[in-house]
Amino acid sequence: MSSQNHSKPAGGRNLDPWYETYASRTKGLAASEVRALFAVASRPEVVSLAGGSPFVAGLPDELVHAAFQSMMEHHGPDALQYGGGQGLPQLREKILDLIAIEGITDAGADDIITTTGSQHAIDLVTKLFINPGDVILVESPSYVGALGTFKSYEADVRHVDMDDEGLTIAGVTAAIQTARAEGKEVKFLYTVPNYNNPTGVTMSVARRREILDLCIRENVLIVEDNPYGLLYFDEPAPDAIRSMDSEHVVYLGSFSKILSPGVRVGFVVAPHGIREKMVLSVESSILSPSMLNQWLVTEYLASTDWRAQIDTFRGIYRERRDAMLESLQEHLPMLSWTVPEGGFFTWVQLPEGLDSKQMLPRAVTELVAYTPGTGFYVDGRGRDKIRLSFSLPEPERIRLGVRRLANVINEELDLLETFGAMSAPTDDDDHVSAAPPDLV
Amino acid sequence: MSSQNHSKPAGGRNLDPWYETYASRTKGLAASEVRALFAVASRPEVVSLAGGSPFVAGLPDELVHAAFQSMMEHHGPDALQYGGGQGLPQLREKILDLIAIEGITDAGADDIITTTGSQHAIDLVTKLFINPGDVILVESPSYVGALGTFKSYEADVRHVDMDDEGLTIAGVTAAIQTARAEGKEVKFLYTVPNYNNPTGVTMSVARRREILDLCIRENVLIVEDNPYGLLYFDEPAPDAIRSMDSEHVVYLGSFSKILSPGVRVGFVVAPHGIREKMVLSVESSILSPSMLNQWLVTEYLASTDWRAQIDTFRGIYRERRDAMLESLQEHLPMLSWTVPEGGFFTWVQLPEGLDSKQMLPRAVTELVAYTPGTGFYVDGRGRDKIRLSFSLPEPERIRLGVRRLANVINEELDLLETFGAMSAPTDDDDHVSAAPPDLV
Repeated sequence: MSSQNHSKPAGGRNLDPWYETYASRTKGLAASEVRALFAVASRPEVVSLAGGSPFVAGLPDELVHAAFQSMMEHHGPDALQYGGGQGLPQLREKILDLIAIEGITDAGADDIITTTGSQHAIDLVTKLFINPGDVILVESPSYVGALGTFKSYEADVRHVDMDDEGLTIAGVTAAIQTARAEGKEVKFLYTVPNYNNPTGVTMSVARRREILDLCIRENVLIVEDNPYGLLYFDEPAPDAIRSMDSEHVVYLGSFSKILSPGVRVGFVVAPHGIREKMVLSVESSILSPSMLNQWLVTEYLASTDWRAQIDTFRGIYRERRDAMLESLQEHLPMLSWTVPEGGFFTWVQLPEGLDSKQMLPRAVTELVAYTPGTGFYVDGRGRDKIRLSFSLPEPERIRLGVRRLANVINEELDLLETFGAMSAPTDDDDHVSAAPPDLV
Repeated sequence: MSSQNHSKPAGGRNLDPWYETYASRTKGLAASEVRALFAVASRPEVVSLAGGSPFVAGLPDELVHAAFQSMMEHHGPDALQYGGGQGLPQLREKILDLIAIEGITDAGADDIITTTGSQHAIDLVTKLFINPGDVILVESPSYVGALGTFKSYEADVRHVDMDDEGLTIAGVTAAIQTARAEGKEVKFLYTVPNYNNPTGVTMSVARRREILDLCIRENVLIVEDNPYGLLYFDEPAPDAIRSMDSEHVVYLGSFSKILSPGVRVGFVVAPHGIREKMVLSVESSILSPSMLNQWLVTEYLASTDWRAQIDTFRGIYRERRDAMLESLQEHLPMLSWTVPEGGFFTWVQLPEGLDSKQMLPRAVTELVAYTPGTGFYVDGRGRDKIRLSFSLPEPERIRLGVRRLANVINEELDLLETFGAMSAPTDDDDHVSAAPPDLV
C-alpha cells in the first residue's frame, strides 16, 4: 500500500513548494477522486442517496428561536464567552437524561465531555491512544469519517468479520491474536453498534455482552460510537455497551441526528483517567467547544419536548426507509440489501461483475448518486457494494432515485453481457480519503 | 526534560488503568498545578488580571439578536445542516474585507479556510507539518495555547531572542543554523506580531520585512497569528506579514476578540497546497465548522456596522490599558513593564528575588490573580515575569487588582529582606501544560 502511494505521483506534489516539509502523517492525506464527483452530485437535479445529512427541515424553526431567545435572555454574556474545556456543566447534566434512554444510568455530569460534534471525539480519542502503526479494530465495513481520522494518525486499521448480529467473537479474537503475534499493540475496538453506518446492521444484546467480556479479558478499550441509537423505527435499540461497563468503554454521542449537525455538539462518556486527558486535549485543539452552541442545545433540551421531536424524526425516517426498501423491491428485486431497523442507511449488494466505483460517474450522469462501498474499507473491498441513504430526500425523491439507479444498474448489466467484465481497478490506494462532510 | 518527566510520578498514573496504553505524545499531557489555583481564582471576589477573555458585554445584545433573526429567516435549514470542510463561502467572502484592513488585498475567498477558533488552526497546521522532534521557532515568550498544542505533537519548540522591535534577525538565523547543525528540520516560525500575547510587544514594519526575507531565503514557513491586530489604541498596527508575501506565510485570524469567542470562529489564509491539505484535515478533525456560528458571523458582518463596534472595543480596551499602566505607576513604580499599543496584555518584570509562580498562591489569598511568566516558555524561564491582562475587568477593578498586587509584592519583598531568597524551584518540568481556556 504505502509503496504504491510513493510510486504514484500524488496530487499537487509538483505544484506545492511545501510538499517535502509535511509530516509523515500528512503524506497520505489526499482528496478522493470520488470527491469531485460528489461536488457535481450536489446539483439540485441529482437525487442524492449518497450523503448522510439529517432532515433538519423536520425541526420546527420556532423551537430553535425559543432556545435562542431564552439563551440570550438568561445566559447572553456567558454564551458569547470562552468556556471550560470539559464543556458546559448545565449541558452535561442534561445529557444524563439522554443517555439514560440507552441504559446508561451510572454516569455523572463529571464523566462527560462535550465536543465539536462526535467527529471531534473520534479525533481526540485517536490522538490520545495511537502511535503510528498501532492497531484499531473496526467493523467490516466501518464509518468512512472514522477511517479517515484513524489514517490521519497513521493507525493500522483492521476490519473484523461480522454476521447478522454484528462483530463476531471469532473475528475479534483472531484480529487481536494476529496483531499481537506481529508485535503490534491493539489500542481499541471501534464500533457503531446501532444502525451501523454504512450497513444499517445492529449488534444484538447477546453479542454486546460477549464482545465486552472479550475486550475486558484482552484489555482492549471499546470506542462505542452511537449517533443513531435514538432513531429506531419500531423497537428501541438494545442498551448501549457502555450501560454494562464504565471502565472499558469510551462512549460517543451526538446531537447531529436528533437536533442539528449545524451546532456541532457531540459528547463523550469516558472513564476517569481518559476523560481527564481528553479535556486537556480539547483545550489543545480548540480551547473550548462553542459556548453559544452549547447553551443553545441546553436551552433546547430545557424548553422543548425534545423526546416528542425525536419521535417526529423517527416517523420521518421510518417512512423514508419504507419508501427506499419498497422501491428497491419494485425496481431491483434481483439485488439484496440490509433491512435497517433505525438510522439512515441500507447496504446493497450489486450483481456480480458490477463495480460500484466505476459505475458512479454513469449514475451521476443519470441524475442519481450513491456512495460506493469502497469508502468504508481500508483494504480495497466494497466494489460490489453501495450505501444508500434515505435520511435527506423526501419519499417521492427516494423512489425517483431508486428508479434511476435501477436504470443505471440494468444498463451496466446489459453492457456487461455484451462486452464482458470491466477493466481491473487501478486505483486501489485511493479508497480511504478524507470524507466530505455532506457524505458521512 | 523528558527524563525528568519519566522519573517523576505523573498524576494519575497509578489510578488510570489505561495509562500504559496512551500514545507517546499523550504522556506529557498533564494539568498544571497552576490550573487548580485558577479554579479558585475564578471566584467573584478575586480580581483576575490573569485571563485573556474579551469583554463580550461590550457587544450590544441587539446586534446578536438581529444577526440570528436574519440567519434563521434567510438561511435556517442551511445553518442547521452540515457544511463544507473549507467553511461557508459567504463568510469567506466577508473575511476578505476584514483582512484588507491589515493590508492583505491579494487573497480570494478560495484562499481562506474557516476554523473552530484560531486555536483549531494552530492545531491543524501543527498536525500537518510536525513529526516528533521537528523544530518550531517561537518568540520569547510565546502564546501558552500554541506552546501546548506544539507539545501535543511532540515538537521541539525553541525560543528566539527578541528586542523592542520583535524577533531579532540574529536570533532567528542562529536558531535555524543550530537546529540544522543538529540534523533537525525547522518546520515553521510561529509569531504573534501584533500586541503579542503575553508581552504586548509589536513587531516593527522593518523587522517584518527582514524576518520574511530571511524565512524566504531559508525556506522556513511563517505562521502569523493575529487575533489582536484590529484592537490598536492610537495608530493602526503595521500591515500583516502576509500582506507582503502569499507563498511563505500561513495567516491566522479570529473573531474571538472583535466579536465573540463563544462562536468559535477563526480563519486561515494559506498558500494553495497547504490550504488543500488543511481542508482535508478540518474534515478529519470535526467534519465541518459549525454552520450556525458561521452564518451568525456572516449575518453580523452583513447587517451591522462592525467597524464601529471594533472602534467601541478599542475605546474600552484603551481605557483599561490606561487604568492598568497608571495604577502600576502609582503603586509599583519600582517595577518595569511593557507599554502595549493594542491588545490585552502587559508584561511585568518582578523585583530580583521574587518568583512569579511561588507568589501566586499568596496573591490569590489576597484576592488578585495574574499569570506567572513560566507558562509562556518551554524552558523554565519566566519566573521573574508576570502577565497582566486588562481586557475583562472594569477600570476600577483593574485599579483595585493592581493595589492588591502591590501589597503582595511589597510583602514578598519584606519577607525576602527578612529571610533571604526563597527555596529553589523544584517543578521545572511543569511549565508547559494544556492551558485552561479562560487563561489564554
